[in-house]
Amino acid sequence: MHNLAAVMQRPGVIVVQERPTRDPRGREVAVRIEAVGVCGSDTTYLTAGRIGDYVVDGAIVLGHEAAGQVAAVGPDVTRVRVGDRVAIEPGTPCRDCRECLTGNYHLCPRLVFLATPPHDGALVQRLVIDERNLFAIPDGMSYEDGAMVEPLSVGLWACRRATLRPGDDVLVTGAGPVGILAAQAARALGAARVVLTDVSPFRVGFARSLGFEAHDGEADADARFDVLIECSGASGVLPEALERLRPAGRAAIVGMAKGDVALALAHYNPRELTISMVNRYAHTWPTAISLISSGRVDVRSIVTHRFPLAETERALLLARRDPHSLKAIVQPQL
Amino acid sequence: MHNLAAVMQRPGVIVVQERPTRDPRGREVAVRIEAVGVCGSDTTYLTAGRIGDYVVDGAIVLGHEAAGQVAAVGPDVTRVRVGDRVAIEPGTPCRDCRECLTGNYHLCPRLVFLATPPHDGALVQRLVIDERNLFAIPDGMSYEDGAMVEPLSVGLWACRRATLRPGDDVLVTGAGPVGILAAQAARALGAARVVLTDVSPFRVGFARSLGFEAHDGEADADARFDVLIECSGASGVLPEALERLRPAGRAAIVGMAKGDVALALAHYNPRELTISMVNRYAHTWPTAISLISSGRVDVRSIVTHRFPLAETERALLLARRDPHSLKAIVQPQL
Amino acid sequence: MHNLAAVMQRPGVIVVQERPTRDPRGREVAVRIEAVGVCGSDTTYLTAGRIGDYVVDGAIVLGHEAAGQVAAVGPDVTRVRVGDRVAIEPGTPCRDCRECLTGNYHLCPRLVFLATPPHDGALVQRLVIDERNLFAIPDGMSYEDGAMVEPLSVGLWACRRATLRPGDDVLVTGAGPVGILAAQAARALGAARVVLTDVSPFRVGFARSLGFEAHDGEADADARFDVLIECSGASGVLPEALERLRPAGRAAIVGMAKGDVALALAHYNPRELTISMVNRYAHTWPTAISLISSGRVDVRSIVTHRFPLAETERALLLARRDPHSLKAIVQPQL
Amino acid sequence: MHNLAAVMQRPGVIVVQERPTRDPRGREVAVRIEAVGVCGSDTTYLTAGRIGDYVVDGAIVLGHEAAGQVAAVGPDVTRVRVGDRVAIEPGTPCRDCRECLTGNYHLCPRLVFLATPPHDGALVQRLVIDERNLFAIPDGMSYEDGAMVEPLSVGLWACRRATLRPGDDVLVTGAGPVGILAAQAARALGAARVVLTDVSPFRVGFARSLGFEAHDGEADADARFDVLIECSGASGVLPEALERLRPAGRAAIVGMAKGDVALALAHYNPRELTISMVNRYAHTWPTAISLISSGRVDVRSIVTHRFPLAETERALLLARRDPHSLKAIVQPQL
Repeated sequence: MHNLAAVMQRPGVIVVQERPTRDPRGREVAVRIEAVGVCGSDTTYLTAGRIGDYVVDGAIVLGHEAAGQVAAVGPDVTRVRVGDRVAIEPGTPCRDCRECLTGNYHLCPRLVFLATPPHDGALVQRLVIDERNLFAIPDGMSYEDGAMVEPLSVGLWACRRATLRPGDDVLVTGAGPVGILAAQAARALGAARVVLTDVSPFRVGFARSLGFEAHDGEADADARFDVLIECSGASGVLPEALERLRPAGRAAIVGMAKGDVALALAHYNPRELTISMVNRYAHTWPTAISLISSGRVDVRSIVTHRFPLAETERALLLARRDPHSLKAIVQPQL
Repeated sequence: MHNLAAVMQRPGVIVVQERPTRDPRGREVAVRIEAVGVCGSDTTYLTAGRIGDYVVDGAIVLGHEAAGQVAAVGPDVTRVRVGDRVAIEPGTPCRDCRECLTGNYHLCPRLVFLATPPHDGALVQRLVIDERNLFAIPDGMSYEDGAMVEPLSVGLWACRRATLRPGDDVLVTGAGPVGILAAQAARALGAARVVLTDVSPFRVGFARSLGFEAHDGEADADARFDVLIECSGASGVLPEALERLRPAGRAAIVGMAKGDVALALAHYNPRELTISMVNRYAHTWPTAISLISSGRVDVRSIVTHRFPLAETERALLLARRDPHSLKAIVQPQL
Repeated sequence: MHNLAAVMQRPGVIVVQERPTRDPRGREVAVRIEAVGVCGSDTTYLTAGRIGDYVVDGAIVLGHEAAGQVAAVGPDVTRVRVGDRVAIEPGTPCRDCRECLTGNYHLCPRLVFLATPPHDGALVQRLVIDERNLFAIPDGMSYEDGAMVEPLSVGLWACRRATLRPGDDVLVTGAGPVGILAAQAARALGAARVVLTDVSPFRVGFARSLGFEAHDGEADADARFDVLIECSGASGVLPEALERLRPAGRAAIVGMAKGDVALALAHYNPRELTISMVNRYAHTWPTAISLISSGRVDVRSIVTHRFPLAETERALLLARRDPHSLKAIVQPQL
Repeated sequence: MHNLAAVMQRPGVIVVQERPTRDPRGREVAVRIEAVGVCGSDTTYLTAGRIGDYVVDGAIVLGHEAAGQVAAVGPDVTRVRVGDRVAIEPGTPCRDCRECLTGNYHLCPRLVFLATPPHDGALVQRLVIDERNLFAIPDGMSYEDGAMVEPLSVGLWACRRATLRPGDDVLVTGAGPVGILAAQAARALGAARVVLTDVSPFRVGFARSLGFEAHDGEADADARFDVLIECSGASGVLPEALERLRPAGRAAIVGMAKGDVALALAHYNPRELTISMVNRYAHTWPTAISLISSGRVDVRSIVTHRFPLAETERALLLARRDPHSLKAIVQPQL
């Protein structure tokens, strides 16, 4: 069995090479990977070799937004069959700890996550993974759509962390792929007004093309919101945005700012703001697949570039080189 | 000022006659009523003279699904202006009791509600009502759309009472106007699969025309759901439908069955079902207006018949006479 | 290794006999059982041979309210050590299904539960069970206290199912062990007024001795409550008790009534009552241990009778024979 | 009618003088004030003349933790009678705005609050206030107990803002009156382990005397908590304390730190911490009265000093002068 993989041998160096693969065992499944979305974290591992406490130490395969087709199944597999088209949830929890048993499996301290060091990711032709990470996608969904279930899941979970309620007015700061999908998630969950802000005129224009109110810089000075979803990670954005929240406003923080953020906390007591940190997602794959396949969320239009596996490095660096890009997809079978 | 009203003089007898009106005082507003939806409760008051403990005693004006244009405002009005197009929330709470202060104003024991005896309703040309019952609708929404905010609110509130979560699979029993709008509300709030059932092939067909899976009688025997919204009020439907709920399933009961309902409660312990009764709605007008005006909910297609004020009685009896009707609208200015 | 067990050979016949035991494997632990509370379900299995769909088919060991001391541990055990005193959670979930992963492990369809056919229970001298079912109890707690963690857990979970909030007024119908412990749980969680009702003057008196308001029959006609916890299982109690709930009232149904219960559901719409079925508990052991060991809940005084293993049958039949009994404890080492 | 009041004529200067009073009108009640607790905010207004955006401009009466006896009632009063002993909720909301109607009346932008400029407070002999601010206290509760309902309410509301659940392990930073009462509230609501920290050995010792684990400085380095209630307001405490929270941990921020607080927010994403700001309380008076009168919360022992009205200034400055003080009570009738 051939299995080409885009291996980051060390930060900055990606080589496409043959990697060993094997037959699936037990509840494992071999997936022929058809589409892998590039995430900012992949780019950061490539350029900086680390994200926070996660440090790349040795060769690693990147990529965790993936979809493909079931190629082979282990003897105990019951949920999928050969030929099924699937979206892949990249985290595998222990299913045993306090977090897993209380429904917060995404906070499992032993979570194995694709492309988070030291675990390899999905930029391969053939991935062997537990069947419980796989969710069938209907015929109307492309593999690219399937790969986009992952970033949409971030948006959906941010809405939940913000306790988004139908009719809420929502401000999304940062109109990159995650911000755009968080805004779409909010709209698909019944939000009333959804406004995006970004420093990039291209991204503001793109957000508008999807029907959103969007602003270059900040939202209108007098606009007030029930919910804030911070996706920019830029220092300085959060304090400004929190000013826009109404009494009992709720903020979900997706973007991870570098270093300390100075917050005038006592200024938020009178409004009783709630600030909720976000770490990926849980239980979102079926919901995201439903929203995409029914047309309630449009993930297709955020895919601006496509690359074969051989050009993985170009794909990973695209976001830094082309300000008019949003989401790059690597197609490992090309 | 002229003010024709459709007055039910006694059960079974509706007469269109001039009724006195007056200038709005304080925070009151005079609304020129443009559209009034007919609800099953209006029909029941006309034919039976009572609903549960509410008994018609003397002449009454029916109608509580209404929209119109602001014609005059009292001296203390700040929220609307003459010329504004508005949807009318029919309940006026005391704003003082325990229920009002805990956010449950719809459960206020002193609630004054349009067309609930002894209070007159909206089947008039000119209605004087507190400004806090009025919600502006945008240009893109018709008055008929505005009148449909009320039944859509029932559906939205049912979703909340059922703790509907994005991705839930939802069964709606009863595909009349409320069932159809509850199903649309569920879809607009992120539900995954939404299935309707009804005994009427016309209603099943109509539900399908809106993109829903719908069944004549019961849902597929092996289908399982997270949420049930019971809108039929037919005895026998609920016990059957509760069987379809998954563990931790939640049912919201909108339809009011006559007499006792026999439930094998002990059969629901193992799945820990939750059964939540529904009484109208609270806080839903802005959300409903947003969903309608943005196109996420289609209320227009459920309006199957229109009548001038002079034909109010025909409008009220339509549902009983024409099995191919869904929602009748009375236009008081015609 | 000796291991005497009280085996129900068929309904009505209990024989104390030697049963094989074995060394714990993997994460298993051998527990020397010191106290086993008798539950009404044990009595019902003995006298009727079945509870609902659970039918006794062959010999079975009863008992699921148990505590003891760790006697031996398997090679992979990390949570407990030989000599630890432990309370035993009787359910072992699959940790893999939808219910387990969403925090509802108690609704796991593959749950293995002590003394629920066909699984043997705890009326033995030596029980081998997974370490994840064991929770250490502090020195100040007796083994009897440890066995009472199970029925207290039912009460705690009922409070959660009823969304009990601090300051709620609570009605508990049925003042047997579960009702008494549910009332104590409510009080320990911040309830304001807690009232019990029972048909037994003995039980009413016992409830009063713990500081509760208690009534023989029904609560005062004009008393109103936010929460109802139905623990009697008697047909007729629920409809009456639901009348006492305030608007937005919530009922948790612990007692399982035989056959259908006729409910005037439409009468509950105006108050928007919520009726939540209860199935055991989840995540309650640490909380219950804390409440008992800190003295916030008194479980000791409900233990009215104690029996050696040889008198298990007498213990199981006590509740039916002695109206002045509450909870019987079997001490397997005596 | 005599009515002596302790008037702060300007920051730093308190004069006890006769103040006009009047008969209660409408739903107003005249309360003979028997006990007023001194809050740190009173002290700050006295010494600094402002708290955040609230600036003292002209003479003002301080004091908002008050209880007394109904002396006269207006013609529309129905909830209390002359002679009733009452605890006073100091905030009067508009009952009309979005916040009031959604249950968040404490966030009402038009809230009138005792002793918050420009509104006078309760350090008077006779206070005229709306009956809806009054809650009867039973005979077993002293007026001092009644005055302590206010600071206990802060603790109860902080528990709610932290989504405290039974069995949670709780860290309370700051063991002043509010911290002590927050810890007691947590215990009365079913928390498992409750730990306090403070820099004052006196306060640590006092916390221990109430049965709490307490530490001088920080909690044990390896202790982990589900909930943090920050009551110190000291910069530097929060970042340290947030490190102690488990995954999905929740922090309620009561203490208002001066200036910006630097938070390494990205460090909180992996654990998905939730930080909830606290602004007083809502709906807490009945709960607090129940917990105090039933003995579940001990407010009496925090009262360390008592003063007649003539010594109000000494009472207000006590906390700054006597490190062995906790709560001063002013008795206006002495």
